[in-house]
Amino acid sequence: MIYMDNVAGTKIDSRVLKKMMPYFEDKYGNPSAHFYPIGRESYEAISKSRKAVSTLINASFNEIIFTSSGTESNNLAIKGILSQKKLENKKHIIISEIEHLSIQNIASKLLNEGYKITKLKVDNYGCIDPDDLRKAITKNTAMVSIMHANPEIGTIQDIKGIGEICRNHNIVFHVDAVASCGHIPVNVATFNCDLLSISAQNFYGPKGAAALYIKKGTPISPLFDGGYQEMGIRSGSENVPAIVGMGEAANIVMEEMPLYSKKMELLGKKLWEGLNDKIDFIHFTGHPKKRLPGHVSFWIEYIEGESLLLWFSLKGICAASGSACSSNILAEDEEGLNASYILTAVGVPNDICAGSLMFSMSKYSKEEDVDYVLSTAPEIVKRLSEMSPDYRKN
Amino acid sequence: MIYMDNVAGTKIDSRVLKKMMPYFEDKYGNPSAHFYPIGRESYEAISKSRKAVSTLINASFNEIIFTSSGTESNNLAIKGILSQKKLENKKHIIISEIEHLSIQNIASKLLNEGYKITKLKVDNYGCIDPDDLRKAITKNTAMVSIMHANPEIGTIQDIKGIGEICRNHNIVFHVDAVASCGHIPVNVATFNCDLLSISAQNFYGPKGAAALYIKKGTPISPLFDGGYQEMGIRSGSENVPAIVGMGEAANIVMEEMPLYSKKMELLGKKLWEGLNDKIDFIHFTGHPKKRLPGHVSFWIEYIEGESLLLWFSLKGICAASGSACSSNILAEDEEGLNASYILTAVGVPNDICAGSLMFSMSKYSKEEDVDYVLSTAPEIVKRLSEMSPDYRKN
Repeated sequence: MIYMDNVAGTKIDSRVLKKMMPYFEDKYGNPSAHFYPIGRESYEAISKSRKAVSTLINASFNEIIFTSSGTESNNLAIKGILSQKKLENKKHIIISEIEHLSIQNIASKLLNEGYKITKLKVDNYGCIDPDDLRKAITKNTAMVSIMHANPEIGTIQDIKGIGEICRNHNIVFHVDAVASCGHIPVNVATFNCDLLSISAQNFYGPKGAAALYIKKGTPISPLFDGGYQEMGIRSGSENVPAIVGMGEAANIVMEEMPLYSKKMELLGKKLWEGLNDKIDFIHFTGHPKKRLPGHVSFWIEYIEGESLLLWFSLKGICAASGSACSSNILAEDEEGLNASYILTAVGVPNDICAGSLMFSMSKYSKEEDVDYVLSTAPEIVKRLSEMSPDYRKN
Repeated sequence: MIYMDNVAGTKIDSRVLKKMMPYFEDKYGNPSAHFYPIGRESYEAISKSRKAVSTLINASFNEIIFTSSGTESNNLAIKGILSQKKLENKKHIIISEIEHLSIQNIASKLLNEGYKITKLKVDNYGCIDPDDLRKAITKNTAMVSIMHANPEIGTIQDIKGIGEICRNHNIVFHVDAVASCGHIPVNVATFNCDLLSISAQNFYGPKGAAALYIKKGTPISPLFDGGYQEMGIRSGSENVPAIVGMGEAANIVMEEMPLYSKKMELLGKKLWEGLNDKIDFIHFTGHPKKRLPGHVSFWIEYIEGESLLLWFSLKGICAASGSACSSNILAEDEEGLNASYILTAVGVPNDICAGSLMFSMSKYSKEEDVDYVLSTAPEIVKRLSEMSPDYRKN
């Protein structure tokens, strides 16, 4: 099996799992139970992870709140900020057209609650024009939320530039760095951001652990009320093994990312160029250079993305089509075969595009994997094209 | 080490952990990725767990929503129900004085939002009088939330009777069964409840997996918006290994609870009677019969609960004082040495009670553990009593 759907979740690093194991069977104490050793050990293990995760993104120890998923972090960031009393009259937020479904759906809910939502347009590469942001800001703008890298088209946004604009206008800025953290540098100081979401399962950590960076002095309301864990911002018994795993995953990223990220970039380049050579009527999506390392996304005229997906799966290759986090829903209803909102945003023509495909590599990807995809792709496309009357007309 | 703080979290069953392991390193697919085998396998594993958990509490498959903690389940239950449009004019909810801190703190937040909160009183055993509930219900009552068993004093509530009253008045009824599920039977049909919270870490499952039962046809709003996982009620990438663990933990409970629960009950009785024989000025809390098996809670006149805790810890015995989920907070501020709100509710006199102690056993507890506690307790109490001028005056 060749796993090339790493934006939907990476394989856990075995060193991470090894660090987690004692916290299942031996060190199972509740971190709130300070009075006996296995309780304190759990508490200290969480602190150690908090230190590692904060260092990974250049934050301070107390600026990291552990959550259960990137989606939870995004929800806490936006709903937690907007429920502040001093923002109650600022009923405008700015996102982009290509934000993750969680941000899109939070925005839809806010729309129903009387908010005005500006969705910044992106160009054909998926990039926001900072001038559009400047123009969109009004005196009623409460916050801006923009993703660092888009998991579907791979484009990396100029977050530093966007952050500067927000800072200059004194507007709260949230960055969704779930797809980028662990693959390219993420630095809350250079980003000028107030909040930033990351998720362990996207950088070789376990499922069930994620974090929200909250800049010191940023007032925020919790989504859960309860026993005051996570400095009162995220109550609920801590998922100690997963948090320990996230800390170890952060340590490994700090040590090894420069190496594997370079390798992934080269493999991505090879796959991109190989597909470009071998496949007719192929169109790559996202920015050719400012993109996640090892991420290759494209569509082929008149060829269904989901048929490609299925055929690659039959050949042992795991890839994705559309937004990973909701592809089951999309597939179950009539929208399943339409282009995603992200493809539409980057100007992909709905009439000749029947869905996209993306290969997202990991630090475990090998050159042989790319070679195998390249040797398999032409026959799959040929077969599907023979079944597509429109393709043959080209 | 003798672990007797199982209300703060149980040790994971090694069979549960074994079932989880393949979902870390081998079957790491995202359940939303239906198009390749390891994605489908994750999806199917979650379905299997949903089936097991639903069977455990006599619910239907689609009535189970996985969350990350009991606190999250409680928050989703109450906030998700109250945000329904048809309840917007019903600004009254009913809880009890001895609910978990998450419910207490949700209620405090609702109070600030203009809700009226009725906290039903309990008798000296921690039992609610159903007549009080009947009298408290008004035409503005939106919902009732009562816990099945209290983790601090062990008392099991007459949930069936309370549920009947709610059903007769057509009021939404939520049960917090976090402390009880896995130790005594929990059955949503006989409870007449609409919502019920349970947590895997309280029945030998992993941390990071919990569930909310939502009776079919009960409209509820999500706390997180996102990719529509968990039937749209709880978005966010699923913590597959933990959910798998929760399913296996549920299977083991169904198979083995009658046996270990009886054993725990007998050990609890032995500990209770032994302490009663050996310790002067001891007062047990909670109901002597209607209580969690293996749960023994008490206070000793003029002896600090936290000093007891510390001394037992030095002797290798892990116990708890006050509410497990917040004991670190309580210890850090001035309130730390006061009786908890639960002790106050059951009429413990603040002037001679300086905190309580609770031993909560698990299916792993042995008679030797109880013997050791009983052999250790008198010398600890003697030492502390010698340091307490008030105790000596007695």
